[in-house]
Amino acid sequence: MNQPRNGGAQRNGGPARTEEPGPPPQLRRGALRVVALGGIGEIGRNMTVFEYDGRLLVVDCGVLFPEDAQPGVDLILPDLRLVEDRVADIDAVVITHGHEDHIGALPWLLRLRPDLPVIGARFSLALIAAKCREHRITPKLEVVAEGNRRRAGAWDLEFFAVNHSIPDALAVAIRTPAGTVLHTGDIKLDQLPLDGRLTDLGGFARLGDEGVDLFLVDSTNAEVPGFVAPEREIGPVLDAHIRSASQRVIVASFASHVHRVQQMLDAAHRYGRKVAFVGRSMVRNMQIAQELGLLSVPDGLVRALDKVLELPPDQVLLISTGSQGEPLSALSRMSRGEHRSVELRSGDTVILASSMIPGNETSVWTVINELSRLGVTVVHQGTARVHVSGHASAGELLFLYNAVRPRNVMPVHGEWRHLRAQARLAGLTGVPADRVVLAPDGTVVDLVDRRARIAGHIDVGMVFVDGNAVGDVGETTLSDRLILGEGGFISITVAIDAHTGRAVASPTLSGRGFSDDPRALDKVVPLVEAELAQLEADGVTDTHRVAQAVRRVVGRWVGDTYRRRPMIVPTVLAV
Amino acid sequence: MNQPRNGGAQRNGGPARTEEPGPPPQLRRGALRVVALGGIGEIGRNMTVFEYDGRLLVVDCGVLFPEDAQPGVDLILPDLRLVEDRVADIDAVVITHGHEDHIGALPWLLRLRPDLPVIGARFSLALIAAKCREHRITPKLEVVAEGNRRRAGAWDLEFFAVNHSIPDALAVAIRTPAGTVLHTGDIKLDQLPLDGRLTDLGGFARLGDEGVDLFLVDSTNAEVPGFVAPEREIGPVLDAHIRSASQRVIVASFASHVHRVQQMLDAAHRYGRKVAFVGRSMVRNMQIAQELGLLSVPDGLVRALDKVLELPPDQVLLISTGSQGEPLSALSRMSRGEHRSVELRSGDTVILASSMIPGNETSVWTVINELSRLGVTVVHQGTARVHVSGHASAGELLFLYNAVRPRNVMPVHGEWRHLRAQARLAGLTGVPADRVVLAPDGTVVDLVDRRARIAGHIDVGMVFVDGNAVGDVGETTLSDRLILGEGGFISITVAIDAHTGRAVASPTLSGRGFSDDPRALDKVVPLVEAELAQLEADGVTDTHRVAQAVRRVVGRWVGDTYRRRPMIVPTVLAV
Repeated sequence: MNQPRNGGAQRNGGPARTEEPGPPPQLRRGALRVVALGGIGEIGRNMTVFEYDGRLLVVDCGVLFPEDAQPGVDLILPDLRLVEDRVADIDAVVITHGHEDHIGALPWLLRLRPDLPVIGARFSLALIAAKCREHRITPKLEVVAEGNRRRAGAWDLEFFAVNHSIPDALAVAIRTPAGTVLHTGDIKLDQLPLDGRLTDLGGFARLGDEGVDLFLVDSTNAEVPGFVAPEREIGPVLDAHIRSASQRVIVASFASHVHRVQQMLDAAHRYGRKVAFVGRSMVRNMQIAQELGLLSVPDGLVRALDKVLELPPDQVLLISTGSQGEPLSALSRMSRGEHRSVELRSGDTVILASSMIPGNETSVWTVINELSRLGVTVVHQGTARVHVSGHASAGELLFLYNAVRPRNVMPVHGEWRHLRAQARLAGLTGVPADRVVLAPDGTVVDLVDRRARIAGHIDVGMVFVDGNAVGDVGETTLSDRLILGEGGFISITVAIDAHTGRAVASPTLSGRGFSDDPRALDKVVPLVEAELAQLEADGVTDTHRVAQAVRRVVGRWVGDTYRRRPMIVPTVLAV
Repeated sequence: MNQPRNGGAQRNGGPARTEEPGPPPQLRRGALRVVALGGIGEIGRNMTVFEYDGRLLVVDCGVLFPEDAQPGVDLILPDLRLVEDRVADIDAVVITHGHEDHIGALPWLLRLRPDLPVIGARFSLALIAAKCREHRITPKLEVVAEGNRRRAGAWDLEFFAVNHSIPDALAVAIRTPAGTVLHTGDIKLDQLPLDGRLTDLGGFARLGDEGVDLFLVDSTNAEVPGFVAPEREIGPVLDAHIRSASQRVIVASFASHVHRVQQMLDAAHRYGRKVAFVGRSMVRNMQIAQELGLLSVPDGLVRALDKVLELPPDQVLLISTGSQGEPLSALSRMSRGEHRSVELRSGDTVILASSMIPGNETSVWTVINELSRLGVTVVHQGTARVHVSGHASAGELLFLYNAVRPRNVMPVHGEWRHLRAQARLAGLTGVPADRVVLAPDGTVVDLVDRRARIAGHIDVGMVFVDGNAVGDVGETTLSDRLILGEGGFISITVAIDAHTGRAVASPTLSGRGFSDDPRALDKVVPLVEAELAQLEADGVTDTHRVAQAVRRVVGRWVGDTYRRRPMIVPTVLAV
């Protein structure tokens, strides 16, 4: 990780860090190096790389979902270019759990080296196997479970049960001669988990007795005071709504939230409703969960959608994806009356048993409003406790600090506000301020003599997936998309005689995304013609100069006339 | 209002209502008609038109702020085209309070008829006067106050004090021979308002005794159970943060929230800080509030920004706009280190004493993260009670129903989810379901024999202001902007001989917002050339046919190669 391929140039979207040091020095012998290629300073695309004695260990390899400033982008990957030259040095990829922001970028990493061992718990690996099948990759998967301790190349790994909003989540301890690291993955401390699988606070405490030199800890809810309510408190709320519903019930949630789905199934069973799963990932994941014994499904409860829809409305429960208002999801289609087989009616109930992931608020409200317009009763987080977070709040994080008693802390899984909040919590439990390392993506942290310090930075970029190409969409393209999306463009096509500069046809002006008025540009044509005549008179035949002149004339006119700033796109042909 | 100018055609963004009746019949003699041109089915651009005996009364005339689906749009107006032909019939515009979503579109209405009387309370009219000055309009303003009863042309109006998040808010009762209407405007029931100006529940009860035939009631928080906490509970929280701050404090809030600002001033005064207002609307509105005696400012407390910045950091309090993360606001600039005179440092405190208006979440979080990165302590609604809503929650709304005891209810100021929630509350207090009229923009509601019924619909469109033009940006332009914003465009310019169809120059291909790769389009050029050769061989000289053929070739190639869908823009010149 001390050999960035792209020396110096600031990559797209990488945080500015003028006040911070440059490239890191060679890693000192006997020292441990930690670099996040994603997931710190942002929520998503988690990937942390550890280096010791020339060998690398990767923890997680997820995707980030784009926001408004990244229009047209499908996914954002960690900057894998930074490990491209060193894939042979990677001993393994450890996966803490199966959420997309922890596994979604694996196919791109595995393309660099398909035989890279991927280590994780059963459910995580099953989701990875399914994902890799779609990418036509056969991964080398190595199952571990909580309590296991094993080597992976140079690395001594131990796994701890943690609870989160997906089964089988793990924390990992990494013992090296330079010191011991504990990475929580995504974690909360539900003290009454539905599956009885508690976060192993006792194990953390024993590791703390042994000495934890660096603690990488989930910061998502570090700003939120108190404790996350137990998942099992959702059950009775779902139960009450399902019991009292007189027509069909649709519950939307996250497709990997097996325990939430279990509670829906239990309620459906209690009140004589049959269940269909709707949405590709929901169907797939619940199949996997059932096969692994993580989801208990009474015989005959779950049926195909068309079979369930044949039943009377008060015997129907659909469990669907689309809780984030994704426009193409089943739920969105239902809300617009465009779903192939499900037509919602007044009196039906939709329960959004989910949070609104930041950035999705508008889409979710749109779905809720469309459903309300149809007369559907909509139950959501704002009106009933139908969701709890999967990430520890401040109160729970204090338990972690007090169990682990870390020598150094590196907040992970958070935007700046979360990292700062995490640092405050570390401070409150007695970690000295200079032992809390805020290290956004690309920050190189070296653990030397049991002390973590920032050793330098490497440039970590945003790697955009758009369609089936990776990496060719960058700052220029996005900035053009933002301009085009706000103001459209005006194209001006001019053909001039290559020798005389004389216009050989009238200039063609056309706007897209500029105005609905077909005559909007009529008045600028004479100005362009006058400019062309002047250029001809001046003997200008250089197409680039003509294009610039035309751009200037049209840009000034549109600014004065409309106070708008469309992109101005001149094309000058010399014929 | 029964003469829509645009008969029949569905306007941009207007809600689909296939299940509902068509154009309304002629208004029956002795009946009252109510139509919202904005504000029902959406939050913003409130404007309701009442018609009786050929005369019109308008209540409010606000703007709506655009969302993602309306890129590049600055403002959305109510569909004023629907009153354009009848401005002479309008007796007055009643303004309930001075928020932009109630007054922002007035300049466009007043341009249709500058001498239209505008009736409202002092603070509302002072804000309108300031706005009209910017538009170079001199409005005809008529001041009223709570308790006043007066005629306006054909209309008998009575005004009631209500509390909201701005001083001087009014509800209006409209007595007509067809019945009495009560329009709450924006309302809450703070029982301990800072200025002692209570919502006049007693007045509503007396009006209820007399009989309220139609109750138009603010639905914004109808989904939210319980009661809004009193505004005065914000004071101690602000006080605690300001008292304990060791460096500069910046508080951002809404520029018309005089009582919130008063509490900031009081705290600043208590702890020896001097205050500067930052942001044009904050400076202007607080000047007006002070002149009207609504804001009490101790001598020497408020100073010019440059004077305040000369003081030691612990004597500085800035009160700023920008609480919604607007990228050009002072606060956003500070967060990016780009503000002209204010450079924030680690240890400074920023308090966002505001809500996040839906749609602004991403912008606000961006500002908070940037501030956190700088080491600024950020206090916001998610971490401390520094904001309360200005709109009544369900518990308060029940008090209103029980005081007013309306014969018919028309929920206003809300999206569908709010309207439905309001309807449920009306039902709980005994209003029969068929007396609750859900009447989104354009729905014509007639009050006949003290019974409100939907009589038909007129097509109400979204009128977009973009730059200095109104109405020329519509569905086509927006849809093009959305396509361009997602995928950019590829232009292909071809010049052919007008007689032979032979290409007289190589086709010019260029992409914007498509790829950063300068060679991205290289491989499609031969395909275009081959197509042109084929067209020439087929004797095609029609530029339109050539353009279509070229579009097809490039579109197919880019779909197959990239799985992307840029706009394909061919230009074919015949020379």
